[in-house]
Amino acid sequence: MALQNDLLLRTLRGEQTERTPVWMMRQAGRYLPEYMVLREKYGFFERCQTPELAAEITIQPVDIVGVDAAILFSDILVVPQAMGLEVQLIESKGPFLPDPIKTVDDLKRLRVPDVEESLGYVYSAIKLIKQELNERVPLIGFAGAPWTLLCYMVQGKGSKTFDEAKAFCYQQPEVAHQLLQMITDTTIAYLKGQVKAGADVVQIFDSWGGLLSPADFENLSLKYIRQIVAALKDEVPTIIFAKGAWHSLETMAATGAHGLGIDWCIDPKLARQFAGNNVTLQGNFDPAKLLSPIPVIEKEVKAMLAAFGPGRHIANLGHGILPNVPVDHARAFVDTVKNYVHA
Amino acid sequence: MALQNDLLLRTLRGEQTERTPVWMMRQAGRYLPEYMVLREKYGFFERCQTPELAAEITIQPVDIVGVDAAILFSDILVVPQAMGLEVQLIESKGPFLPDPIKTVDDLKRLRVPDVEESLGYVYSAIKLIKQELNERVPLIGFAGAPWTLLCYMVQGKGSKTFDEAKAFCYQQPEVAHQLLQMITDTTIAYLKGQVKAGADVVQIFDSWGGLLSPADFENLSLKYIRQIVAALKDEVPTIIFAKGAWHSLETMAATGAHGLGIDWCIDPKLARQFAGNNVTLQGNFDPAKLLSPIPVIEKEVKAMLAAFGPGRHIANLGHGILPNVPVDHARAFVDTVKNYVHA
Repeated sequence: MALQNDLLLRTLRGEQTERTPVWMMRQAGRYLPEYMVLREKYGFFERCQTPELAAEITIQPVDIVGVDAAILFSDILVVPQAMGLEVQLIESKGPFLPDPIKTVDDLKRLRVPDVEESLGYVYSAIKLIKQELNERVPLIGFAGAPWTLLCYMVQGKGSKTFDEAKAFCYQQPEVAHQLLQMITDTTIAYLKGQVKAGADVVQIFDSWGGLLSPADFENLSLKYIRQIVAALKDEVPTIIFAKGAWHSLETMAATGAHGLGIDWCIDPKLARQFAGNNVTLQGNFDPAKLLSPIPVIEKEVKAMLAAFGPGRHIANLGHGILPNVPVDHARAFVDTVKNYVHA
Repeated sequence: MALQNDLLLRTLRGEQTERTPVWMMRQAGRYLPEYMVLREKYGFFERCQTPELAAEITIQPVDIVGVDAAILFSDILVVPQAMGLEVQLIESKGPFLPDPIKTVDDLKRLRVPDVEESLGYVYSAIKLIKQELNERVPLIGFAGAPWTLLCYMVQGKGSKTFDEAKAFCYQQPEVAHQLLQMITDTTIAYLKGQVKAGADVVQIFDSWGGLLSPADFENLSLKYIRQIVAALKDEVPTIIFAKGAWHSLETMAATGAHGLGIDWCIDPKLARQFAGNNVTLQGNFDPAKLLSPIPVIEKEVKAMLAAFGPGRHIANLGHGILPNVPVDHARAFVDTVKNYVHA
């Protein structure tokens, strides 16, 4: 049975489509009252690990705001968890890892896990989601980029600068690369499993790639993302979203990824110039702008679509949707994209 | 009497110099044990408002790490404070403004103050610093950019995204522009007073400029920075440091500012290409890299200097020095610049 709405897949493959597809990072989340009901009742990992809950949350924005793709409800930190680290997700406080990695000895506490065993609950969720979606829209699977996961695994919590994670890499580069390779190996197996279970696309989130200089981004991040893309890109379309790493759009495009996410701090035309013509760009609406009055949202979304031009563009935010965005504002974003006709 | 070391001023004016000048953002701060002694004894605003303390702290890094310029010890939030807002600076927690600006009515609580009256303590500090520096190195005065000050005045505290501040601007653009103009008028008077008291250079810190899209940066930030530069640039050399706003280097250079600060996420050669040849660039060492072993610091500093090339460059960090940097690492940074000879 074929997908009823395959706009996302065709756009990622560079095919012409009748309109621009649209979804929103963190679309399955706190701005939806229906999500908040489930959040009141179940803990974060309970929601991730119970296929019925993960499926319900994943599908909510498809039903409620009408996006062109579902994205698996999960968290990038399930990978460090499967590798053997304790991860706590404290609502409204962010992640906390009580025993972070600091030395080469700490690597002994980690393993490259059997993903079927330790992350099988994700695959069960994907199978259920695919069944319940019933081919309405494609399902995006995802994982964190090795550098971003290292940030949390070393720093132990969120940070503006992740300077402890950086210091670890600068002071013990061999240990850092060993850790990055372990994360990479796990991530490749994990994403292959997601595809096998039914994910139609995979996205790699490098939330903290933009904290690195261009040279460090190549050395500590892109080197590993490249391995992941190489292992996946012949199976499904792949998207790299390295927030803030505008400087490396050209080298990211050269990985063979089908799509590159960009944030709102780069003009779409300049991003296209950097990335070249053989990759789809995804983004780049400022999430805070969804707090504007609806007529302003409509005007600004149209300006964004005009700046990207027709083809090879997936409309999205430049980062995750904020919890305090009214649902009708999110819907205005999605509807404006759906109704837009390129001049 | 003339400055004994005027490398910074000559570099800002585009003159040839025997070597690259060097200073570090937040050089008067928490990585210095001598500073920590004073921090134990006096509250933050007490240190700012007591000319003898501000002078001692300002001059410490000149004596201890041998930088080519002193920068006034103060805080950008003294301006909102002088405008009538309560500002608390809680050590290790950051700024807190208990009654932030939310509506047009809140503007009534603000004034464009008589700066001699409300910020006279800064001018007293500058006079004392100039006297104690005794023309060894120039003194940099500074202020926050109006956008960055609005961020704190509206959000009321630090934030990763400053989405409440952005929402304020998107929902009430007229009120936002009224506030930005009040801050701008205050800042111009404040900086003119600093120059009158003896500041040799002024730097405008737009710490949160990089959170805005290029169009919003022009509309909410650069429009006001431009007024400040225009009012000051014929009196003293001016530097704009809008962290993350690499996309606007060309328009920032067009303000007539003498120097532009850049962070480590842009390659110096690309920054030069964007900014053109008629402005001095300042930066751009990753502050976290000062946590590397000293030989690595030396190697990376030399690579940075080579990338900028000779002339129109002030060596600096790409953001403030981190509190946990060992003093000898800071000194290695400074010494490597001082000893470097361009090939």
